[in-house]
Amino acid sequence: MTRFRLTLEYDGSPFVGWQRQDNGPSVQAALETAIEKLSGERVTVTGSGRTDAGVHALGQVAHFDLEKPFEPGKIREGLNHFLRPDPVVVLDAAIADADFHARFSARARHYLFRILNRRSPPALDNKRVWHVSAQLDAETMHAAAQTLVGQHDFTTFRAAECQAQSPVKTLDRLDVSRRGEEIHIEASARSFLHHQIRSFAGTLKLVGEGKWTPRDVATALAAKDRARCGPVSPPDGLYLVRVDYS
Amino acid sequence: MTRFRLTLEYDGSPFVGWQRQDNGPSVQAALETAIEKLSGERVTVTGSGRTDAGVHALGQVAHFDLEKPFEPGKIREGLNHFLRPDPVVVLDAAIADADFHARFSARARHYLFRILNRRSPPALDNKRVWHVSAQLDAETMHAAAQTLVGQHDFTTFRAAECQAQSPVKTLDRLDVSRRGEEIHIEASARSFLHHQIRSFAGTLKLVGEGKWTPRDVATALAAKDRARCGPVSPPDGLYLVRVDYS
Repeated sequence: MTRFRLTLEYDGSPFVGWQRQDNGPSVQAALETAIEKLSGERVTVTGSGRTDAGVHALGQVAHFDLEKPFEPGKIREGLNHFLRPDPVVVLDAAIADADFHARFSARARHYLFRILNRRSPPALDNKRVWHVSAQLDAETMHAAAQTLVGQHDFTTFRAAECQAQSPVKTLDRLDVSRRGEEIHIEASARSFLHHQIRSFAGTLKLVGEGKWTPRDVATALAAKDRARCGPVSPPDGLYLVRVDYS
Repeated sequence: MTRFRLTLEYDGSPFVGWQRQDNGPSVQAALETAIEKLSGERVTVTGSGRTDAGVHALGQVAHFDLEKPFEPGKIREGLNHFLRPDPVVVLDAAIADADFHARFSARARHYLFRILNRRSPPALDNKRVWHVSAQLDAETMHAAAQTLVGQHDFTTFRAAECQAQSPVKTLDRLDVSRRGEEIHIEASARSFLHHQIRSFAGTLKLVGEGKWTPRDVATALAAKDRARCGPVSPPDGLYLVRVDYS
């Protein structure tokens, strides 16, 4: 038995999300089907975390086990062959220690949220960015974001259906910066609550428009009340960039 | 009669190209249809140049005339409404002088060609980049590109069906640089021959792989012989970035 670790890029827009579900195509099912075509073995693929429908990955990490031996390079090339035409690509395949676990061994997760901040909608980056027409002030958004960094009870920024045991998380980084026509929100933590980053993005947009102050964000956080959150952003601009392991 | 100037972004992948053709959807036809829906007037839209099937634009420029008066902002918003769901977006609309001509008034055209240079194909930038697996040496590609800059007879790098009167053009800039996993080729000239940049890209790829030297590129240029060109690249990585007017 060999455990393999995959690093994955995918376009989340045609999927119901990472997790295998009955109601449509998932990234997990696409991978499991490709692995079966390559190896003849039916396996379960475990990701570092579930990404929602429409959320993309530049560096999702997953693991699975095979009975038969395989060269990692053959795994990468073979899966990329059998994954076509699904927009899921294996960037790297490696043999992992038997106790490596894509979810439980993860030490940090890094996300990027892209806002296209201009009058006209995207022609080339449709489904890749959140389009916001109103001019946003990235500096004030960044200042507001700093009130969220650190260890907090993030109940305000957590989906009702979140399955995490505790709403207390440590947010290591939440940087907001302007890159030409785009606003980038970069978030890092050991783990995130369900819809946490999209709740941040929707709330920080209110700050960028001048409808909320940074103080309003701090007050909403302190309230520990889901009803105090800004509107949750669409998934289109969210990317799982990297997962770190010790 | 008012002449309007449009700045356009589009995804070239679903189109037969800029120019209206009988064999499929074109950017020009999408615009002319949207203008008719907005204004009730049937017009001809003239672009700064034709882009091939699959070639994208970040800043194509076009003009057209309307009998009825319109606010430029209404033109932008109205066309963006009626263009949906085609991936063509009006970034800017402005009233132009009566003698402004998107093609003949252009002083310089700027293109970007993106090569994704890594083992795995693109999941997110499918149809947006040319995927080249072999490791490319951007510095040697740049050195080779400099032999093409200046005024030359570019017969070697010109499609057989090119309609330009002369193969002599002045290439102002051809820079090649590595940007992480991508190689960017940036080309500027007053005008280009048909397939000229894709011929450059295909030829420079041979240099990047070590199959050709910079001297081979200079020799091919001097031969003024289409048969001496490297293979023409696919259109996927090519973007019309900007057109300058005096």
